Amino acid sequence: MSGNTFGRQFCVTSFGESHGAAIGCVVDGCPPGLELTEADIQRDLDRRKPGTSRHVTQRREPDTIEILSGVFEGRTTGTPIGLLIRNVDQRSRDYGSIMNAFRPGHADYTYWRKYGIRDYRGGGRASARETAARVAAGAVARLMLARSGVQVTAYTVALGGVATSQRKLTEIADNRLGCPDNEAAGRMEERLEQVRKQGDTLGGIVEILVTGCPAGLGEPVFDKLDGELAKALMSIGAVKGVEIGAGFAVAGLLGSQNNDPITPAGFTSNNAGGILAGISSGQDIVARVAVKPIPSIAKAQQTVNLAGEPVIVTIGGRHDIAAIPRILPVCEAMVCLTLADFLLRQQAVAAGR
Amino acid sequence: MSGNTFGRQFCVTSFGESHGAAIGCVVDGCPPGLELTEADIQRDLDRRKPGTSRHVTQRREPDTIEILSGVFEGRTTGTPIGLLIRNVDQRSRDYGSIMNAFRPGHADYTYWRKYGIRDYRGGGRASARETAARVAAGAVARLMLARSGVQVTAYTVALGGVATSQRKLTEIADNRLGCPDNEAAGRMEERLEQVRKQGDTLGGIVEILVTGCPAGLGEPVFDKLDGELAKALMSIGAVKGVEIGAGFAVAGLLGSQNNDPITPAGFTSNNAGGILAGISSGQDIVARVAVKPIPSIAKAQQTVNLAGEPVIVTIGGRHDIAAIPRILPVCEAMVCLTLADFLLRQQAVAAGR
Amino acid sequence: MSGNTFGRQFCVTSFGESHGAAIGCVVDGCPPGLELTEADIQRDLDRRKPGTSRHVTQRREPDTIEILSGVFEGRTTGTPIGLLIRNVDQRSRDYGSIMNAFRPGHADYTYWRKYGIRDYRGGGRASARETAARVAAGAVARLMLARSGVQVTAYTVALGGVATSQRKLTEIADNRLGCPDNEAAGRMEERLEQVRKQGDTLGGIVEILVTGCPAGLGEPVFDKLDGELAKALMSIGAVKGVEIGAGFAVAGLLGSQNNDPITPAGFTSNNAGGILAGISSGQDIVARVAVKPIPSIAKAQQTVNLAGEPVIVTIGGRHDIAAIPRILPVCEAMVCLTLADFLLRQQAVAAGR
Amino acid sequence: MSGNTFGRQFCVTSFGESHGAAIGCVVDGCPPGLELTEADIQRDLDRRKPGTSRHVTQRREPDTIEILSGVFEGRTTGTPIGLLIRNVDQRSRDYGSIMNAFRPGHADYTYWRKYGIRDYRGGGRASARETAARVAAGAVARLMLARSGVQVTAYTVALGGVATSQRKLTEIADNRLGCPDNEAAGRMEERLEQVRKQGDTLGGIVEILVTGCPAGLGEPVFDKLDGELAKALMSIGAVKGVEIGAGFAVAGLLGSQNNDPITPAGFTSNNAGGILAGISSGQDIVARVAVKPIPSIAKAQQTVNLAGEPVIVTIGGRHDIAAIPRILPVCEAMVCLTLADFLLRQQAVAAGR
Repeated sequence: MSGNTFGRQFCVTSFGESHGAAIGCVVDGCPPGLELTEADIQRDLDRRKPGTSRHVTQRREPDTIEILSGVFEGRTTGTPIGLLIRNVDQRSRDYGSIMNAFRPGHADYTYWRKYGIRDYRGGGRASARETAARVAAGAVARLMLARSGVQVTAYTVALGGVATSQRKLTEIADNRLGCPDNEAAGRMEERLEQVRKQGDTLGGIVEILVTGCPAGLGEPVFDKLDGELAKALMSIGAVKGVEIGAGFAVAGLLGSQNNDPITPAGFTSNNAGGILAGISSGQDIVARVAVKPIPSIAKAQQTVNLAGEPVIVTIGGRHDIAAIPRILPVCEAMVCLTLADFLLRQQAVAAGR
Repeated sequence: MSGNTFGRQFCVTSFGESHGAAIGCVVDGCPPGLELTEADIQRDLDRRKPGTSRHVTQRREPDTIEILSGVFEGRTTGTPIGLLIRNVDQRSRDYGSIMNAFRPGHADYTYWRKYGIRDYRGGGRASARETAARVAAGAVARLMLARSGVQVTAYTVALGGVATSQRKLTEIADNRLGCPDNEAAGRMEERLEQVRKQGDTLGGIVEILVTGCPAGLGEPVFDKLDGELAKALMSIGAVKGVEIGAGFAVAGLLGSQNNDPITPAGFTSNNAGGILAGISSGQDIVARVAVKPIPSIAKAQQTVNLAGEPVIVTIGGRHDIAAIPRILPVCEAMVCLTLADFLLRQQAVAAGR
Repeated sequence: MSGNTFGRQFCVTSFGESHGAAIGCVVDGCPPGLELTEADIQRDLDRRKPGTSRHVTQRREPDTIEILSGVFEGRTTGTPIGLLIRNVDQRSRDYGSIMNAFRPGHADYTYWRKYGIRDYRGGGRASARETAARVAAGAVARLMLARSGVQVTAYTVALGGVATSQRKLTEIADNRLGCPDNEAAGRMEERLEQVRKQGDTLGGIVEILVTGCPAGLGEPVFDKLDGELAKALMSIGAVKGVEIGAGFAVAGLLGSQNNDPITPAGFTSNNAGGILAGISSGQDIVARVAVKPIPSIAKAQQTVNLAGEPVIVTIGGRHDIAAIPRILPVCEAMVCLTLADFLLRQQAVAAGR
Repeated sequence: MSGNTFGRQFCVTSFGESHGAAIGCVVDGCPPGLELTEADIQRDLDRRKPGTSRHVTQRREPDTIEILSGVFEGRTTGTPIGLLIRNVDQRSRDYGSIMNAFRPGHADYTYWRKYGIRDYRGGGRASARETAARVAAGAVARLMLARSGVQVTAYTVALGGVATSQRKLTEIADNRLGCPDNEAAGRMEERLEQVRKQGDTLGGIVEILVTGCPAGLGEPVFDKLDGELAKALMSIGAVKGVEIGAGFAVAGLLGSQNNDPITPAGFTSNNAGGILAGISSGQDIVARVAVKPIPSIAKAQQTVNLAGEPVIVTIGGRHDIAAIPRILPVCEAMVCLTLADFLLRQQAVAAGR
């Protein structure tokens, strides 16, 4: 495959540009017999959709999912599941002014260098809209994992310099930012509003928690569980860093601090983040990703045009202030896809024992 | 493949345990006509080998490479390159005392859960010794990349809480720790000595710098260059975090700070770390990894045995205090393998233009 | 991937059932800059479509292709090409009578054993309708190959026991059966009519000729060009045998007869069928496939139902008498996809020379 | 992978040339806990080895297998199994006379076109010696299959124009040619002797029979069981055709003749060769391959040299008269590898049901 297929046993192949006819994907390798309806997928898609607040784009993207194949009488058949989302509000005229300029922090320049093509329509394949296909596929993976008791939840632990001081998962649904700390969420909202007025954007940190994951998932040495999670999460456009468990903090720890002691009742700490030697340990899996500020800012920026001449761009259109919270279901989807794949890969060899 | 093959076009398949007969790998997809001798590989292997100081294990592991195939009259033929390193000093008796206990922070527990096997011989496949095969394969990739002007260098930017205050690449070779700051390297050595006496171990941070990388490498959307680098680096046993460019710092930046302005003379900053939208931009690629402390410590640790009973383990044998600096050539190897693969993948489609 | 993706560099992922909402595929890895319109694809689809004569099914399957992504301003962008064909005439009621019986020679029994599902709607994923997605993807590959001067043509060399006595390629378009021998085509039509009246069906042999293929395609040792062609062609439902060049006739030849002598003007024969040691030689590539009779026959047949009880089935509905000639563009598509993939794979390593 | 890896879940990666230091392979994905010794592998290797009669090469190739990894205390561990066979009798001087000429029917010409390299040492990677690695890997697969009751047997059904008139499997071991018809075997030996005196070589047909294969193996639509078997067998250098069940004979059958009726006691015929719609049916799997005459003949042949000038070559050295019977264990190995892979792939999705 040429970069648009993820997974080996539970596989998703994605297609589509933000301003083309449609986006979608093919989920191949899903076991037969899984109950699946469009509503199961729509639920996650709706969490990713824009237009729910001032801080996210007001574009109308209904993101209505259609299951094209692979489901018969409400259950998966084991054959590939085709998923389609039509694009309905492309308004490519908004992008006319930046047709010939490379927007800083955007895919414009590298896509042009790689493909020799300048598709100026709002990012094309590099648009965050592409992640809707990930979310749709991830919803299928999530259902499969649920049968095994695996739950995947992403939440905001920092935004625009405001960090949470607790992880109260019950509060995630209380605020619009998916933050397990209502008080911090309030301050994050203030920061978003402040920066919105400045015509600027914000970055943050998302944590993903997996509960109920059986021990034994992950395929050493190259396809370690943490390695594949890192790829899965870093393949999301806005992500610039991934860490597992104690993450970068391990650099300052002693071995005696970092090692998680084992007792008959289980591990007494979880610096490993649920993954030891690339294999799940049965503990909660904990990952965090660094989310960069949305590159589309209203402020004037220095760049060059296709002719290499210096120009100043100011990006209009309707854009989010932060990738958070819309990135939360995308992070969950990529973790679900990774775990679903490893669950099947482990079944392949363990079933014969 | 089942977890031991890396890459799609330039591929390495690895095998071998620390206490078996040999370790090695097969490099498949290397173009024909590349000058390659055992000395080219041995050079990198020697940088990884133990026994060069008090802080690294004194085991005799000569790591002598043998090229078994794929080279004729000093050049690669385009057929698979078989690489073999015999194990010569296994001394599995050292591990007798921990035969039945799961060492905290080690692969013992998860390998047992995954495979149902307790291979107590010093880590077996999960031993850091496995990385010698990566270094050998990476040396071949490095030669291929050098023809295109790509250079990959890893160096230590933090160890045991001591951080470098500069990145003077000329100083990397001056000190034993591969640190681009001789003064910091001195303090790191002191910290190592201190912790060695305590029977404990240290973590740190390694930065990898790629110069000369052409624009256009990376395959959106899932096989982004940063995604594959994250996988490649996170697949190294001791790594618990990966970041690109500004990395986790982006969480606190504004869009106007994080976006790298473009001028006719090029980008004026490199927060992106040389990768935009998953594709190399032609700037230097910059990645950092968090390296956990070596889990084998001399201090007593709480754990359980195979019967699930609580036991105290004290790990003897000859072990490093830190994975740094031996991990440096491993990081370089994984980055070389990733870039070699993407270089060929890009040639596949770009050649026809 | 889980069985529905073909190719490594030029890849197609297929989805869809005969009686679901749609069939389609994603073509990933097509180089950018290739001129591509829906008409280019429709042309091949129309050659595969039913309803053009008495001997093929009269169902209305307009097979209208829609390009969903990957094309901008009439050219491919290098991103995945989503292709969609809606199903418009499913009439699943025709299949009611065989809902609980396993039709001999059909997928019914093995799909049920594999997936534990009985999708009785006309074959579902195993229907020949699935091949429309192959033809659509193959049309893209064909365009890419044409740029390199490669032409792929399939034609009928035997049908119902009637064999061609010549291979006059100019006559292929003269008759409805794609036969390079108008006289034989006439006798084949008589045989079809005769068997149609008996409520029976016919098998045949298709030959595929590739001209203009450059030397050097194919990846020893497992991914030999003939190996992948064999897989590609045998993966078509009706195919039970594949041979290259002299094929099964080599069993009766002496080495001195079978070896193709080489002269300064080229090879003087082509028993090898254009492939030596799994690599194209630059000669014409010649392959033949054995096509089984359509299993849906009007005659009464002995079988069992889901309960394992003996039943007699008579298959109504509208079915072809022979897979020929509709299988011809499918054979071409699979060969085009195989060659496109190997062309890119060869460019990956040869470009650096 | 670049052509030297076979399989997706049970994978083998092969390396080595006939006149290099060694050949071997890495088997990745074998489940843990399988009893495996070098003797298990040596048994199959010995069936492939030369020097057992006048009709096969007298070179000394002891083909001694060494297990380098992946086995602990007599059982597989689930980690990659490294297998090594040293080359001990290369005598590359024998090939000096054909250093600059392209031997008809050999890989010389196409390897030179593909790789730009002229490795004149007896075929190098294209030598039949490469198949020893397949046999070694296949022996591991065979053991795994045996646990599930699957047996794979290849035998000679035609050689030099002499066909068997029966398939009495008990007679296979009675004669040196692996022929299930002792009387035919006698006539085949006479034909071999006759042709040996003429300095020529012979082709034949091998049939492979699989008993005990469970229903449900194979992954539609592209990775059908027959498709992968066709690739597996066609990837053997000497094979020019593959057919399943009735094979090419289906071209002359009516649907009513070809369809295998189903009764409560099972299928009443096996024209399908145990595979329906790409999935095993539980019947015996039957495949046949066409084996070309060994291209190395003692007779003078017309060819060109590297400069493109016409030359006459006469190939000395010690060569077989026919690839049969040494190819028999190679055919078995490829079928074992294919089935082992599909068995694990099926377990991946079926285990969760």
